[in-house]
Amino acid sequence: MNKELLSNYSNKFEKLFNKYVPVENNSYNTVTESMRYSFLLGGKRIRPFILMEFYRICGGKDDSALPFAVALEMIHTYSLIHDDLPCMDNDDIRRGKPSNHIVFGEDMALLAGDGLLTHAFYVAASTNGINPEYCINAIKELSYLSGYNGMIGGQVIDLQSENKKVPIETICEINALKTGALLKAACRIGVILAGGNINTLSLAEEYGEKLGLAFQIVDDILDECGDEQELGKPIHSDEKNMKSTFVSIYGIEKCKEIVEKLTNEALSCLEKIGGDVSTLKELTVYLSNRKN
Amino acid sequence: MNKELLSNYSNKFEKLFNKYVPVENNSYNTVTESMRYSFLLGGKRIRPFILMEFYRICGGKDDSALPFAVALEMIHTYSLIHDDLPCMDNDDIRRGKPSNHIVFGEDMALLAGDGLLTHAFYVAASTNGINPEYCINAIKELSYLSGYNGMIGGQVIDLQSENKKVPIETICEINALKTGALLKAACRIGVILAGGNINTLSLAEEYGEKLGLAFQIVDDILDECGDEQELGKPIHSDEKNMKSTFVSIYGIEKCKEIVEKLTNEALSCLEKIGGDVSTLKELTVYLSNRKN
Repeated sequence: MNKELLSNYSNKFEKLFNKYVPVENNSYNTVTESMRYSFLLGGKRIRPFILMEFYRICGGKDDSALPFAVALEMIHTYSLIHDDLPCMDNDDIRRGKPSNHIVFGEDMALLAGDGLLTHAFYVAASTNGINPEYCINAIKELSYLSGYNGMIGGQVIDLQSENKKVPIETICEINALKTGALLKAACRIGVILAGGNINTLSLAEEYGEKLGLAFQIVDDILDECGDEQELGKPIHSDEKNMKSTFVSIYGIEKCKEIVEKLTNEALSCLEKIGGDVSTLKELTVYLSNRKN
Repeated sequence: MNKELLSNYSNKFEKLFNKYVPVENNSYNTVTESMRYSFLLGGKRIRPFILMEFYRICGGKDDSALPFAVALEMIHTYSLIHDDLPCMDNDDIRRGKPSNHIVFGEDMALLAGDGLLTHAFYVAASTNGINPEYCINAIKELSYLSGYNGMIGGQVIDLQSENKKVPIETICEINALKTGALLKAACRIGVILAGGNINTLSLAEEYGEKLGLAFQIVDDILDECGDEQELGKPIHSDEKNMKSTFVSIYGIEKCKEIVEKLTNEALSCLEKIGGDVSTLKELTVYLSNRKN
């Protein structure tokens, strides 16, 4: 994987985020501090990266899609803040640092999450140089896939499945919505903003689904046998929370095979799309072998 | 006030909400149940009503702006759900009924709020029959004024001011952001969606500001000497929470005078806008005399 390209993009995302959520000196700047804390904690930034790559592959010119990429990452960040709250997963550590509510308190963490989610749509709607109809369609995608029919729906089923043995179908549904939906959004929005055709859109969606499931299974594998230092969070959390996962059902070896199969299928979608998909192919392989 | 008109609109809002957040029979329908519970608890629906009136006054045809009106009310509803949570105001009662988290639990209330906020942008972006550029501008307004520079910012200052004596300037800032911002959004979005001119936009904004402050002061007066039954919530909550308000600083009589002055100023903005503003004028007077 071309790390330089990834970090080059990450810099652009953070620069634009800094423009849209600057350090403030006003009477409510605690909330911007809290929003900035979680967004700037780092992360792989793969959702915005994938969005920008699909935009480029489909003929998108320059960096016009960047605001959407940043908006998508803001939504990802808000979901982590709310997930970590005591009434949800109650996690004190995120990316090796104290979770948002540990630093800013539960009330401010709640509002920082709300603030990132709301402002994501401001940032997305501030896009310039793209056909307004494409923009509106992309806003629909973003809200649908991060909403109750997407990411939030996955979180709901996940909460309902706590401390229970659940069938593989339910695990697949949780994965498809909770992790998969935003990755699918990244793919679809990139294509939509560039005015890509329906065939590409459908292949991009299929790619996103395969990648999303592989991504989640790798997460589960790392939770079982990853390195806490590298991960920036405690391992064995699924076991501790008695959470059913692909790993708890199929075991590590079988899961590695499933990841390889899904990765190959994802790569095959990219080949069918054609054009300069080399970077996305590298990313796909890199994510299947990641250590954090 | 023409109650029939208000209830006619309310029916339209609820019908469209039912279309966009229907009763579901899927694995995550607890969250839609929870979203529907709070939205359909009732309320005066004055924000969407004002939006539709400004749209009509500015020459907007038919009901094309309805999705935005519903989206605005969804955002208002989410803010009430999150405000009532134990880590915020910890209120068990809303509109005379148990708060969302009392019925569905804190985790589901959090997600229902997130779901309403996210889906509001889906509903807004689903608008048909309006210039896409106007739509995008209206989405920017909606996200800006409900975000950290608007409603959320007001909530932050409010939290920081709990159990403290704060100066009137701070109270004004809390009111302008926490209550005022969404009312201002209603006015501005109505004008924007109809393609109204900059002069009307500025008068609509001024109207929204006057109305917003008057609205909040009436709320404070009702909290001091309203009827619990009619209000659907306990009174004296500001005193109990040692909250500084216009009433705690100026007393009831002076506050009534301020409301009258603001109401007259708001009416004068409407007169300057001209056209068929009679319904909005009635609403303005009705809100200044309301008992709940």
